Amino acid sequence: MDVKRTELGQLGEFGLIEHLTNGHSPRNKSTIKGIGDDAAVLDHENFQTVVSTDIMVESIHFDLGYTPLKHLGYKAVVSNLSDIYAMNATPKQITVSLAISNRFSVEALEELYAGIYKACDYYNVDLIGGDTTSSLKGLFISITAIGQGEKDKLVYRNGAKVGDLLCVSGDLGAAYLGLQILEREKHIYKDFPEMQPVLEGNDYILQRQLKPEARRDIIDQFAKSQLVPTSMIDVSDGLASEIRHLCHQSKVGAFIEEGSVPIHPDAYQKAIDFQHDPITCALSGGEDYELLFTIHPLDADKVKFMPDVVILGEIVDKNDGIHLHSKSGRRHPIIAQGWQHFSNS
Amino acid sequence: MDVKRTELGQLGEFGLIEHLTNGHSPRNKSTIKGIGDDAAVLDHENFQTVVSTDIMVESIHFDLGYTPLKHLGYKAVVSNLSDIYAMNATPKQITVSLAISNRFSVEALEELYAGIYKACDYYNVDLIGGDTTSSLKGLFISITAIGQGEKDKLVYRNGAKVGDLLCVSGDLGAAYLGLQILEREKHIYKDFPEMQPVLEGNDYILQRQLKPEARRDIIDQFAKSQLVPTSMIDVSDGLASEIRHLCHQSKVGAFIEEGSVPIHPDAYQKAIDFQHDPITCALSGGEDYELLFTIHPLDADKVKFMPDVVILGEIVDKNDGIHLHSKSGRRHPIIAQGWQHFSNS
Repeated sequence: MDVKRTELGQLGEFGLIEHLTNGHSPRNKSTIKGIGDDAAVLDHENFQTVVSTDIMVESIHFDLGYTPLKHLGYKAVVSNLSDIYAMNATPKQITVSLAISNRFSVEALEELYAGIYKACDYYNVDLIGGDTTSSLKGLFISITAIGQGEKDKLVYRNGAKVGDLLCVSGDLGAAYLGLQILEREKHIYKDFPEMQPVLEGNDYILQRQLKPEARRDIIDQFAKSQLVPTSMIDVSDGLASEIRHLCHQSKVGAFIEEGSVPIHPDAYQKAIDFQHDPITCALSGGEDYELLFTIHPLDADKVKFMPDVVILGEIVDKNDGIHLHSKSGRRHPIIAQGWQHFSNS
Repeated sequence: MDVKRTELGQLGEFGLIEHLTNGHSPRNKSTIKGIGDDAAVLDHENFQTVVSTDIMVESIHFDLGYTPLKHLGYKAVVSNLSDIYAMNATPKQITVSLAISNRFSVEALEELYAGIYKACDYYNVDLIGGDTTSSLKGLFISITAIGQGEKDKLVYRNGAKVGDLLCVSGDLGAAYLGLQILEREKHIYKDFPEMQPVLEGNDYILQRQLKPEARRDIIDQFAKSQLVPTSMIDVSDGLASEIRHLCHQSKVGAFIEEGSVPIHPDAYQKAIDFQHDPITCALSGGEDYELLFTIHPLDADKVKFMPDVVILGEIVDKNDGIHLHSKSGRRHPIIAQGWQHFSNS
């Protein structure tokens, strides 16, 4: 197959940015000026602005051995938008900074940007700025997302009160299991390069890992039901870690019922296949990008009729700690086991 | 000497961010919520928001062999704020994303953050968010700066008109020569490790490289003189490159007078010592962080009385091209020679 390869140096930094961002016009009224000046310019009506930033590093957050660049671009945007939705706000703009080695061609970056723009289209967001430079080794993607929310409807992590109900959208643990499949196939491929990867039948789980979505639909549901959660956080590092963040900032404790933790049947079965405990995958697996939130108990009815949301547990006094009530009736303290990038273990 | 070294893994990602950002409260009224939630929250009055982003990569943009981490943090912020001032706006908030290898200790990052916060203090800016993760190799710093400006007073790159005067603040080329000194001393040190670096007598030039400032004072002068430039850009990649950007976006040509290009006497002398042409250093050397702008000719008097600003040349028709008028009366086309990170040369 004849694949076109244009070296980055042929375009230069400014030529490259122009090449990658050409032909995309702003879709949000608030985007006055996008790429091409010292800074982008945003207008605002009677809203507050929310800002979130993330950096993704090759070999730490993603492996290009099994992550198509287009999926990577899409996912990098989604993980940032998820933070904006977790404020009960609407993302409007993003900036993208890249550091890339000469190993990448212009065509490779076009793929990455195709994914970035696909996410922008789907979530109605404008790419308004960026910086593209070289790295000696590897790919680094830093994205800043900017959104708007109504002052009285923004939801922070610190608003959970004793007696509030703890809820979560979607299902948990599948993205982690998708990663396990991809890692397994990568290792098999290393040892037996002639073997084809066995990915069939794992569509749902793989899609959760490779092309996750942010829960804009849940935010829309909140607006329709006139529900403002008392606190909210997105589930990027695993349910256990996020519950602990939320409780820490709200100065409360919590319990969740093991039987209420939503696990997709495919993820459940795959966990068993891998000889993992499904509930551990749901608690400690990352990258679900679901929304974990608390509501006042009087709002319980609103949530009960909301599709794809379950009530997981309850907020309790800080001194009562943070626990999982197992199906067998035991109380297990919930310990953070999210990604610890810096630990040596 | 007993230097304390705390490994990054001892704190973990969230502990590290908390450790590095603790005890700094917001100074801008518009900063409603800073670090510690899914996103920061900004309020706004009757202003437009401007956003700029940059990524700096070890061994590409900086060499830790001669760049103290505190200076690096300061400079990383300044280079972003400079973009906001170049819109005739006031920076209010920044986010900082880092990817760092285990080679760095917590104490090293404290130094970096000391520089970041020093710049925040000096420029009255709030650090409102960030992400800190590991890299397999090297240090990556991505900063997004957010500012505010009055709608009718924001200055873009595309507003220069034929007949406008081209002006620049400060002096040019010194930062580049500072880098040459540091590079020279590094090479000498490699060959003769017992030798001490010879940095004395180069204070001005070295400071321009190691601790540059953004020209907030010029923006203040504009406000005081009720002057709104017709176009503006900051000089980060060298005068030649920036003039070309400005002309390209404004669809005009320009000429500058060699004799009017401001070069500090120390930089002039150092260029001669290095057997460089001083005007070439001023045209092609980067990292000056001065402001290049155009004004309507009727505003010439306002600029003449402005300290540290000179009129360099004039905007002409696009077909007349972009030229340097040399002291000897010749016309040289101005070619971009800014940093080309991706070229193989």
